[in-house]
Amino acid sequence: MDPKEPARTRVGLLGQLPRKVDVYEVGPRDGLQNELRTLPTRDKARLINALVAAGEKRIEVTSFVSPKWIPQLADAEELFKLVGRRPGVVFSALVPNLKGLERAQAAGLEEAAVFISASEAHSKKNINKTIAEALAGAKEVTAAARKAGMRVRGYLSTVWGCPYEGHVPVERVVDICRQLVDAGIYQLSLGDTIGVGTPRQTEEILGALLAHMPVDTLALHLHDTRGTALANALVGLSAGVTTFDASIGGLGGCPYAPGAAGNLASEDAVFMLHGMGVDTGIDLDKLVEAGEIAQELIGRKLAGKYLQAALGEREKKSSRRAQT
Amino acid sequence: MDPKEPARTRVGLLGQLPRKVDVYEVGPRDGLQNELRTLPTRDKARLINALVAAGEKRIEVTSFVSPKWIPQLADAEELFKLVGRRPGVVFSALVPNLKGLERAQAAGLEEAAVFISASEAHSKKNINKTIAEALAGAKEVTAAARKAGMRVRGYLSTVWGCPYEGHVPVERVVDICRQLVDAGIYQLSLGDTIGVGTPRQTEEILGALLAHMPVDTLALHLHDTRGTALANALVGLSAGVTTFDASIGGLGGCPYAPGAAGNLASEDAVFMLHGMGVDTGIDLDKLVEAGEIAQELIGRKLAGKYLQAALGEREKKSSRRAQT
Repeated sequence: MDPKEPARTRVGLLGQLPRKVDVYEVGPRDGLQNELRTLPTRDKARLINALVAAGEKRIEVTSFVSPKWIPQLADAEELFKLVGRRPGVVFSALVPNLKGLERAQAAGLEEAAVFISASEAHSKKNINKTIAEALAGAKEVTAAARKAGMRVRGYLSTVWGCPYEGHVPVERVVDICRQLVDAGIYQLSLGDTIGVGTPRQTEEILGALLAHMPVDTLALHLHDTRGTALANALVGLSAGVTTFDASIGGLGGCPYAPGAAGNLASEDAVFMLHGMGVDTGIDLDKLVEAGEIAQELIGRKLAGKYLQAALGEREKKSSRRAQT
Repeated sequence: MDPKEPARTRVGLLGQLPRKVDVYEVGPRDGLQNELRTLPTRDKARLINALVAAGEKRIEVTSFVSPKWIPQLADAEELFKLVGRRPGVVFSALVPNLKGLERAQAAGLEEAAVFISASEAHSKKNINKTIAEALAGAKEVTAAARKAGMRVRGYLSTVWGCPYEGHVPVERVVDICRQLVDAGIYQLSLGDTIGVGTPRQTEEILGALLAHMPVDTLALHLHDTRGTALANALVGLSAGVTTFDASIGGLGGCPYAPGAAGNLASEDAVFMLHGMGVDTGIDLDKLVEAGEIAQELIGRKLAGKYLQAALGEREKKSSRRAQT
């Protein structure tokens, strides 16, 4: 090798990463609402208890939407009663309208989440509203929730692309996000709803938004449908994002088919973060236990890779012990 | 929002990415050698033909190891005869020793691959040699192969961690790589054999190596066992690496359990690369067809996420057509 040949590259792209980030758990809501089977309330509470035991501090547990829309989550009040309050843990829930907010308030909710789509076609299909109508509704709910002393989080879906419209202009994303932040939302969770995002696009979206708002206003809600969730998360992390939505075992959010992946799995996120020295406050082994419970409750294997690797490794060890 | 609050972050971490990279296909060798069932030679050739039809240009098709070691690949000569030569396509094969090299030469091999482990325990367990013994053997094969007019590629396994020893010192990796490059190997494929790598570590490993050799000497052979393969690939890409090993559908390399992921899936890699404007010369739709063939041949679903998403989407469309 020619010693004069220079190293042709810089390595150091990650820069300084945040020392601590939150993995915001959406499995009990976003995951279970996509399951065909409705779990008994006590099973949901069991899963949530396991997530709390693993050290998760922000968990979206249910939705105060009409039970007609999502029968899987019709037991929101009962579930809130069952899980109660835990020191240092914030349980949140989706709140689609003022009627839902009333229920949420009565249930003692501390943090509400509103949702908006960045694509007209998706908004129409999902909630039968234009983006403008949905924005007006979200602002109304936000104002009332804040008046009632709740923190409000916002979900913006289809930011990386829409299943009906394809490309979603980043200017529209910026415009909606600015309106929601101005309306008093403390954090916006940007959703790659169908899992089509790639890292350069993530960089562009974050770049456009960070010109208008501080980085802790933003969270990433990435889907791993095509395997790119952690690569996109890495871009966010490197840009200073400190909240990443994830779902235990990758529960729920299979937009196309059983077997296809949806939500980024919480364990995969925690594994990568810890591996880079980024603290999450979560015990990965206990998170795997929660993942096992999730699998048991829904009666099938989940797509989370760390979970499957950990369970496989354990199985191998125990069969080795059984042989000796 | 306070307009004086500055954007607290830089976004632009990816920098300039390579315009074109090679996805080096290892499915037919690394994938199929990990399958319990031995495929008929004509089925292997069918898969390889589909990979060539998708535009893959570098494919490791088999191994000239003793059939006693890996009976799945005992038909190396026959397979080489069946697939023949294709303009612009390089078929390579593993060559463990001089005896294998003789067979490879007789079969008309253009590119040979040698393999070394960066961990003593793994080397002992895998090929019953110390690292020093394995290095001596690899150098011997490399010299003879080059004399016979072949290009030689090297695999270095357990670079990110060893299943028996755990941590693998990066100094040892650098030392082995320098010796192999000096021995005339044109490209070293760094293997995250058990899929424990995270991006900061990838940055450290590449940084240490790039102080001693040009970036096109290096390829990344990442496993997606814990979901981090594409995040690690992104670090490599950003550092200028232009060869990424991958396996059709993620075929093979499940080190622990069925259901657990192994090799990075070629389609996942191509999807991310194309999404960032990085050319691979590969047609992603045709790659999915090759993935379907791989699934059909081995008789089970593969772990590749893009593949499952694409097949699921197609199924959904056809069932919609059937309903109308």
